[in-house]
Amino acid sequence: MQNLREQSLALHHQAKGKLSIHVKVPLENARDLSLAYSPGVAEPCKAICEHPESIYHYTMKGNFVAVVSDGSAVLGLGNIGAEASLPVMEGKAALFKAFAGIDAVPLCVNTSDPEQIVQIVKALEPTFGGINLEDIAAPNCFIIEEKLKKEMNIPVFHDDQHGTAIVTAAGLLNALKVVDKRLEDCRIVVNGAGAAGIAVTKLLHYMGAGDIVMCDSKGAIFKGRPHGMNAMKEAVAEITNKSGMQGTLHEVMKDADVFIGVSVAHAVTPEMVRSMKEGAIVFAMANPTPEIMPEAAKAAGAAVVGTGRSDFPNQVNNVLAFPGIFKGALKVRATEINEQMKLAAVYAIANLIAPDELTSEYVIPHPLDRRVVEAVADAVARAAMETGVARVAKAL
Amino acid sequence: MQNLREQSLALHHQAKGKLSIHVKVPLENARDLSLAYSPGVAEPCKAICEHPESIYHYTMKGNFVAVVSDGSAVLGLGNIGAEASLPVMEGKAALFKAFAGIDAVPLCVNTSDPEQIVQIVKALEPTFGGINLEDIAAPNCFIIEEKLKKEMNIPVFHDDQHGTAIVTAAGLLNALKVVDKRLEDCRIVVNGAGAAGIAVTKLLHYMGAGDIVMCDSKGAIFKGRPHGMNAMKEAVAEITNKSGMQGTLHEVMKDADVFIGVSVAHAVTPEMVRSMKEGAIVFAMANPTPEIMPEAAKAAGAAVVGTGRSDFPNQVNNVLAFPGIFKGALKVRATEINEQMKLAAVYAIANLIAPDELTSEYVIPHPLDRRVVEAVADAVARAAMETGVARVAKAL
Repeated sequence: MQNLREQSLALHHQAKGKLSIHVKVPLENARDLSLAYSPGVAEPCKAICEHPESIYHYTMKGNFVAVVSDGSAVLGLGNIGAEASLPVMEGKAALFKAFAGIDAVPLCVNTSDPEQIVQIVKALEPTFGGINLEDIAAPNCFIIEEKLKKEMNIPVFHDDQHGTAIVTAAGLLNALKVVDKRLEDCRIVVNGAGAAGIAVTKLLHYMGAGDIVMCDSKGAIFKGRPHGMNAMKEAVAEITNKSGMQGTLHEVMKDADVFIGVSVAHAVTPEMVRSMKEGAIVFAMANPTPEIMPEAAKAAGAAVVGTGRSDFPNQVNNVLAFPGIFKGALKVRATEINEQMKLAAVYAIANLIAPDELTSEYVIPHPLDRRVVEAVADAVARAAMETGVARVAKAL
Repeated sequence: MQNLREQSLALHHQAKGKLSIHVKVPLENARDLSLAYSPGVAEPCKAICEHPESIYHYTMKGNFVAVVSDGSAVLGLGNIGAEASLPVMEGKAALFKAFAGIDAVPLCVNTSDPEQIVQIVKALEPTFGGINLEDIAAPNCFIIEEKLKKEMNIPVFHDDQHGTAIVTAAGLLNALKVVDKRLEDCRIVVNGAGAAGIAVTKLLHYMGAGDIVMCDSKGAIFKGRPHGMNAMKEAVAEITNKSGMQGTLHEVMKDADVFIGVSVAHAVTPEMVRSMKEGAIVFAMANPTPEIMPEAAKAAGAAVVGTGRSDFPNQVNNVLAFPGIFKGALKVRATEINEQMKLAAVYAIANLIAPDELTSEYVIPHPLDRRVVEAVADAVARAAMETGVARVAKAL
């Protein structure tokens, strides 16, 4: 880790950050200036006045995404604030470019007031083709995303929620093929009631999971639980835990088919895995240390294990989802990223692994598998067109 | 013009805007990802937490400028709104890069409420090293700039005001050498009481101009004028028009030494120029058609003529100022751009033309003169250090 630390600091210091601006038009002589700037630039301006949609022809808007954060829930670091979160947001923007050719910039804001963040992002709609919310703590992330989705006509996507949910769901679909179970027959335990846990639970519910029991630090969440509830947990309780299970994580994991951890290191013991049904699937995604290490989970009988780490098989990595999702949405100028588009991304990711390639160690494509972004983008664009949220219908 | 129109539209359409993002670090393999993103990116984050100033080492902030506009006063186009102004703001950002190597992005906002624009820009302080306000109509531009300068610790610069004022003043200093007059002996008429006119007047006053009479569409502005005043004009009246001149532009131009037009086409007749003192200096900067055409002004006796156009000598072009000003300010992490820094830019631009090179047709350096940006940047950085607004003292 010392090595990684020094190398990362050196890399960031040498480059002074990870992004720069590239000018796509010549600016060498007076003629160049008169076309790209005054007086020629007046022409695209007038064209956009007359035909607002032509902003997508004459400007960068259609391929331009803002990575917005207040730095309140960064990686494993927590609430480090806007300034300290800037390296992460630059990195996210770099991934947008490297994986999907999308021009993205970090916008770290020094306020965590959800109403103010909404005002800021809304006001920037003329400039950007899409908004990626990043590393904003719950419950603000839910409030902000919901409001922006309602009030903006460009895609707004909180990656910590939906990116994680989509890749997890894709991995789960393939893991179920390996153990020969059906999603609608499974009882799934989700540990962690933050942004990612909520989103995973909602998406798996939408996909028809048999039953889901969500746990937080107080154990199973059930309708009417007297302590430690909030609006999001209440909403989750409405659609999950059909049999009203109560008790600790340890208790509810007994006879579960699937465990999905978006919680903390070492939250799961081998004994807890041993208590699960045969063919248990364990996605232990706490970072950097999983809820249970893969070898321990396997030794305790888990059939398929995934983590958030690159040094084990089956890495749940958001980079499998957000580049393609935005690429697909931007391609057809989608006004939003809806449930069907997310579902299309889930299947596109899952189906990249052919049935005869599928093993317990390979249920999720590799993060650097270059086929992923195009497959996801095409599926998402198609779903956008099919659900009527695309503003152009010629992308594919 | 038809040709320019078609070529500009084609250029903008082909490139889909003028800017893209370039990633400065490798992102080819798992190791690259682990350094630039998770988990390695946590290291610069932690470093910034501990030493906030190290954000300038580890991120793009120190070379990153936002070009902010509501599109309410664009070029010769007026209030065309945020969307239609995007090509101009992209162009401005492109000039930042091409002339000064500064990474700039357009941020066009769909609100013209000054309080809201202030909130938005303030919140973005963690991300940017400087703010360039652009094409925001008076009086909001004054309100917004004043408030942001007070409340932010990075440079905030409204280029339509100060860029124009700085280049005009530089040209005027050289023109005065040509006609062998001193600024403190001159009576100057400034026509146009918008953002540029106010800024030119304030800067020339600060530099010790003998007297200035500002005119708007109602003629000379004087203390206590009963009609057509506002807060900015009242402030101008306090420091100008020492003899309380009243009357039309025509009347106050009689016996003036200098005319500076930031108004409308054809506002000045040959007769008005003829009524000026010998060695008259005429800067007719209305765009695209000047207050009086250079040939006509010369024929009427003007000794030195400047315009805003590239097809005549002595072009007052903001590109001579803002790239170097921001470059100098960013170099020393200045907390603001103060009057002394602006003055340093004025002299740096003026002094690029050696006394023996100076002619009536060459009082302002050519916009593409590549010596300008470094000269301005060095002078501005030095002035920042001398006036105590630099956060580092090692730039030169």
